[in-house]
Amino acid sequence: MTSALLDSLRKGNRLALSRVLSQVENGTEAGLTALDELFLETGTAQKIGITGPPGSGKSTLVNALARELRQRQPDKKVAIIAVDPSSPFTGGALLGDRVRMLDLQDDKQIFIRSMASRGALGGLAEQTEALSQVFDAAGYGFILIETVGAGQSEVDVVNLAHTTIVVDTPGTGDDIQSIKAGILEIADILVVNKADRPGADQSVTHLRNMVEMGYARSINNGKHHLEDFQENSEHKTTSAHWVPPILKTVACEFTGIQELTDAILTHAAHLRQSGQWHAKDQAAIRANIRHQLIAGLLSDFNQNVPVEMIDSLIEQAQKRAISPNEAVRVLLTYNRNNSLESSE
Amino acid sequence: MTSALLDSLRKGNRLALSRVLSQVENGTEAGLTALDELFLETGTAQKIGITGPPGSGKSTLVNALARELRQRQPDKKVAIIAVDPSSPFTGGALLGDRVRMLDLQDDKQIFIRSMASRGALGGLAEQTEALSQVFDAAGYGFILIETVGAGQSEVDVVNLAHTTIVVDTPGTGDDIQSIKAGILEIADILVVNKADRPGADQSVTHLRNMVEMGYARSINNGKHHLEDFQENSEHKTTSAHWVPPILKTVACEFTGIQELTDAILTHAAHLRQSGQWHAKDQAAIRANIRHQLIAGLLSDFNQNVPVEMIDSLIEQAQKRAISPNEAVRVLLTYNRNNSLESSE
Repeated sequence: MTSALLDSLRKGNRLALSRVLSQVENGTEAGLTALDELFLETGTAQKIGITGPPGSGKSTLVNALARELRQRQPDKKVAIIAVDPSSPFTGGALLGDRVRMLDLQDDKQIFIRSMASRGALGGLAEQTEALSQVFDAAGYGFILIETVGAGQSEVDVVNLAHTTIVVDTPGTGDDIQSIKAGILEIADILVVNKADRPGADQSVTHLRNMVEMGYARSINNGKHHLEDFQENSEHKTTSAHWVPPILKTVACEFTGIQELTDAILTHAAHLRQSGQWHAKDQAAIRANIRHQLIAGLLSDFNQNVPVEMIDSLIEQAQKRAISPNEAVRVLLTYNRNNSLESSE
Repeated sequence: MTSALLDSLRKGNRLALSRVLSQVENGTEAGLTALDELFLETGTAQKIGITGPPGSGKSTLVNALARELRQRQPDKKVAIIAVDPSSPFTGGALLGDRVRMLDLQDDKQIFIRSMASRGALGGLAEQTEALSQVFDAAGYGFILIETVGAGQSEVDVVNLAHTTIVVDTPGTGDDIQSIKAGILEIADILVVNKADRPGADQSVTHLRNMVEMGYARSINNGKHHLEDFQENSEHKTTSAHWVPPILKTVACEFTGIQELTDAILTHAAHLRQSGQWHAKDQAAIRANIRHQLIAGLLSDFNQNVPVEMIDSLIEQAQKRAISPNEAVRVLLTYNRNNSLESSE
């Protein structure tokens, strides 16, 4: 089945693209069908995650990067997905959009999409991946994914990227807890933005020390586990022999953007040559399947087990008559038996 | 079954407590058995989540709070769980521990536990909840859970708390993206720490505006959904009629700590009077059961479906021969049929 809307999207129609993105984001039947079809046309875009603490100038950096990538490879379109933490305060995202729009609205080969909340597809990572697939199939060669970052959801989001850029600013490294280790360890490229401020060189040195520690770690521990659907798939595929460069930028003045773009393109080449591009693609698909599988298993469970039984067990657990663990044992047994009966 | 170790824990033996915490954290058989038993003795502790950006002085604040809570209610023991994002750079957590230990080591009614990574039980939230249950059963009346926060994993962690304290510092609100809305909306108490710095009053005003927006939202949208096991249980139980106070502290000088402690105790009383204590407890147990249920369903699935079939479908998806959605449909069908056959 090929709809007129998808054909229009393939031909570069921005309105069609926008509609499909909304369908996918809202998890409509049409969106799921579109995704089923468009997925088969994905696999060429470079997904680039940009993350860092609030105030590090990520939006300005993404802005500059989009323009430089367009100049460097005029045949490739650029998508920007701006991910905000799930929130009712969508004002932030909307305002951010408007700021960016003003700079980029002249170039019709750049498309900006904001996600202010996780939608029908589950977590932010799943949502971002689904939108990326649409952009990929629509012929966008670079997908810039910007996320406010210090937590696990940001790690999940950028784990789906081919290239992860972690942005920091001078002078934020003076506190024990500012070691954002969980984020640093997934960086392919490190950027000290606002590098015209005092302390930029110290920040570079600090980050270099961190990276050297983390890099050693990732060589030892970074095996990607493909065999176990049970475990949390937090592991980032190891970019063997890639030492994350640390670059200084002043994004608002366009300083250092060329070097950063060089690093992004070099990293893509490295991924392809080392086989990591393939491995990352496989990991993303595996995570996608795992997520959908859990939703499906829960859906089956909800059909097999009456809600009254679930509520009763929760109530017993709340009264401390049974432990949650016991409640789950009872539910799983009932699920197995009832699945059997209904099929006979 | 009551083991000597658990009896020893109940009598206040710190070494026994430490051992059980490790067993639970490592997910050993003994740990799971202990949790099954100890859970039945939980439900009295006030869990207090403290979150905020790196550099906001959370550790110092937690330190001061622990001391003040001990002074205020000498009959209650205080546990501190310091949650670091999953990371191989455990140096940060270890160093932080040592700093805190120096301040608090004299008081044997305070127990500090660091978690540098998610362990056998799954996500950080599950891990934190399990350790909280051990502390609760061991008679700790206050459980302070400190987490570096701007992301979903931090929201998940503090969602399990009775009282969530969000810490900020003056002068971080000058950027569009510094609106940490996803965290602010779950705050029961807001703290501007390091309030001797310039801009503290502006920060208070800024936060008050944010809270007023968020508070209105939560009254409209904050219904807790109990009926649906499918959805992401991100909703925070609404603390109806509780307007989050905004307090200024200078934790390193112990300024404002008494007022903060007052707010914490007032909030506990509010929760009990309004029935929210009960609702939060139910939500935590529901989340716990949901998490264990998913693990169990996946375990059943892994027994029913050969790993070769899973890998083959992933490979087909990677070759863009089928979509992940189709792969999942095949897997779910096989799971249902094979579950049937093996039971006959």
